[in-house]
Amino acid sequence: MTFELTILGTSAAVPYHDRWLAGQVLNVQNKLILFDCGEGTQFRIKALKIKKSKIDIICISHLHGDHIFGLFGLLTSMAMEGRKHPLSIFAPKGLEDIVDITFKNSAYISPFPIEFTEVDTENAAPVFEDKTLIINAFPLSHRIPATGYCVREKPFPANIIPEKIQEFDIPFDKINAIKNGENYLTTEGVLIPNSELTYPPLKPRSYAYCSDTAYDERIVPHITGVDLLYHESTFMHEMAAHAALTGHSTAKQAGQIAHLAQVGQLILGHYSSRYDNLDWLLNEAKIEFKNTVLGIDGNTYSVDLQRFNA
Amino acid sequence: MTFELTILGTSAAVPYHDRWLAGQVLNVQNKLILFDCGEGTQFRIKALKIKKSKIDIICISHLHGDHIFGLFGLLTSMAMEGRKHPLSIFAPKGLEDIVDITFKNSAYISPFPIEFTEVDTENAAPVFEDKTLIINAFPLSHRIPATGYCVREKPFPANIIPEKIQEFDIPFDKINAIKNGENYLTTEGVLIPNSELTYPPLKPRSYAYCSDTAYDERIVPHITGVDLLYHESTFMHEMAAHAALTGHSTAKQAGQIAHLAQVGQLILGHYSSRYDNLDWLLNEAKIEFKNTVLGIDGNTYSVDLQRFNA
Repeated sequence: MTFELTILGTSAAVPYHDRWLAGQVLNVQNKLILFDCGEGTQFRIKALKIKKSKIDIICISHLHGDHIFGLFGLLTSMAMEGRKHPLSIFAPKGLEDIVDITFKNSAYISPFPIEFTEVDTENAAPVFEDKTLIINAFPLSHRIPATGYCVREKPFPANIIPEKIQEFDIPFDKINAIKNGENYLTTEGVLIPNSELTYPPLKPRSYAYCSDTAYDERIVPHITGVDLLYHESTFMHEMAAHAALTGHSTAKQAGQIAHLAQVGQLILGHYSSRYDNLDWLLNEAKIEFKNTVLGIDGNTYSVDLQRFNA
Repeated sequence: MTFELTILGTSAAVPYHDRWLAGQVLNVQNKLILFDCGEGTQFRIKALKIKKSKIDIICISHLHGDHIFGLFGLLTSMAMEGRKHPLSIFAPKGLEDIVDITFKNSAYISPFPIEFTEVDTENAAPVFEDKTLIINAFPLSHRIPATGYCVREKPFPANIIPEKIQEFDIPFDKINAIKNGENYLTTEGVLIPNSELTYPPLKPRSYAYCSDTAYDERIVPHITGVDLLYHESTFMHEMAAHAALTGHSTAKQAGQIAHLAQVGQLILGHYSSRYDNLDWLLNEAKIEFKNTVLGIDGNTYSVDLQRFNA
């Protein structure tokens, strides 16, 4: 029951030494979601041995080149590998036009369906839901329309305590009802409360992707309590004015948002190429929010399954 | 007086292990010309320490993704580095539309002029000329309109033999005329033929880029006698039918074209990912044309300056 984020690239605007461009893969119970797709994303996916064929959803934050120029190559590489099953792409208005004209001019027709969904960059809204998870989009504050994404697992069914089946002689056809929260009436007419029959439920896990954005507290309600928050931290706070001007955040501001949203862990990223030593950014954010880590190219950040306290 | 080709990538369609996508930089007397621009070209240019700012011309062969998907990132990276001077891009119809819509949707305006020239893919024609070189485009045979390019240095002015200036007491204002081929009349009325006053002239060097294309002898007159010929060799000849079907060449066919065109050296490339051992392709081509070498990612192929025989 995996829930882990792999960071493909952490560089802002241009690749910098070992820092590649924007791209992250979230593995939720073996379902892969790609966030952004900077140039070279297909190389990174290959190098990190991530299965392209398992990516069924791509969430694009905005249409700046460092977040989308790898998309064309990724889509054609997926086709080369024989993909036939559909791919969903969520993005602000315009991406479908870009992909359409690019493919049209190379006389390229995708052998698998690509379903574009235009994300409303003015209002928060759910954009995807299946049995396992729900994805919400919410506005970010950038120079062009931009959207953040929050992925939350759906509630897990309760696990029945195996010994209780024997103890109360529970028939097979009652098991599902108990898993879904019902109490159990024994053949002797004794009512056993559900909480005595099941383990405390597993906690659904969650991840929020906020890149690129200026400091904006309006983000907070959309990401409150997530286990993992990726929030861009392009600059040190001494460059706060420049950050605001360019629609970016400082490491301190990323920490402030994490603190306000009471998240589990903050992951930094989208670093300006002016910073060789990222510890400066880390230390600055940590003053605002202790459980901060650096996003590092190729690193994976997991959330373990835990049960709610009984 | 450099004339050297650096190969950025040799893989067809998708990146393969250490083989990157299409891209080559020709350095002609310190003027850089980029041929094709597959995804990752900006990374390769950086890794190979090629100066982006010196690339003033980009020649695109056709609009298949593996030859153009790196262009957007290269153009924006050039801008990030402060480029202000113009860039010329030669390409078949459609590329300007793709770049325009991509930049428009990211609200991106290039801070340096990008001058697109639509290349006629039906008829050969010169596309560029300056003091140093001339570039001709000529049709290739591919699945979509495609063009090859041939770069030839212009004739060099002759070099005067220094001792002759003294010997015949040649005044300074006659030097240029002699360099341009004139004879010299001494004050005693003796006519000294130009060939006695100058070294044999330097040979202009030349390079032709043929990718992607099926075997097509109509290419030959446009590349005859070039010092370096890059001709794609996607497949072994046992796959000749598949090569023809997909608009590609076999290594044997690349060798045949090199032989017919009496070139100096043939460089192979654009290898299918089915070939781990490229020596098979090399050996096949060498049977047709002895002076064949493998194009290898990151390698440089030079042409030395030589004089015509006296």
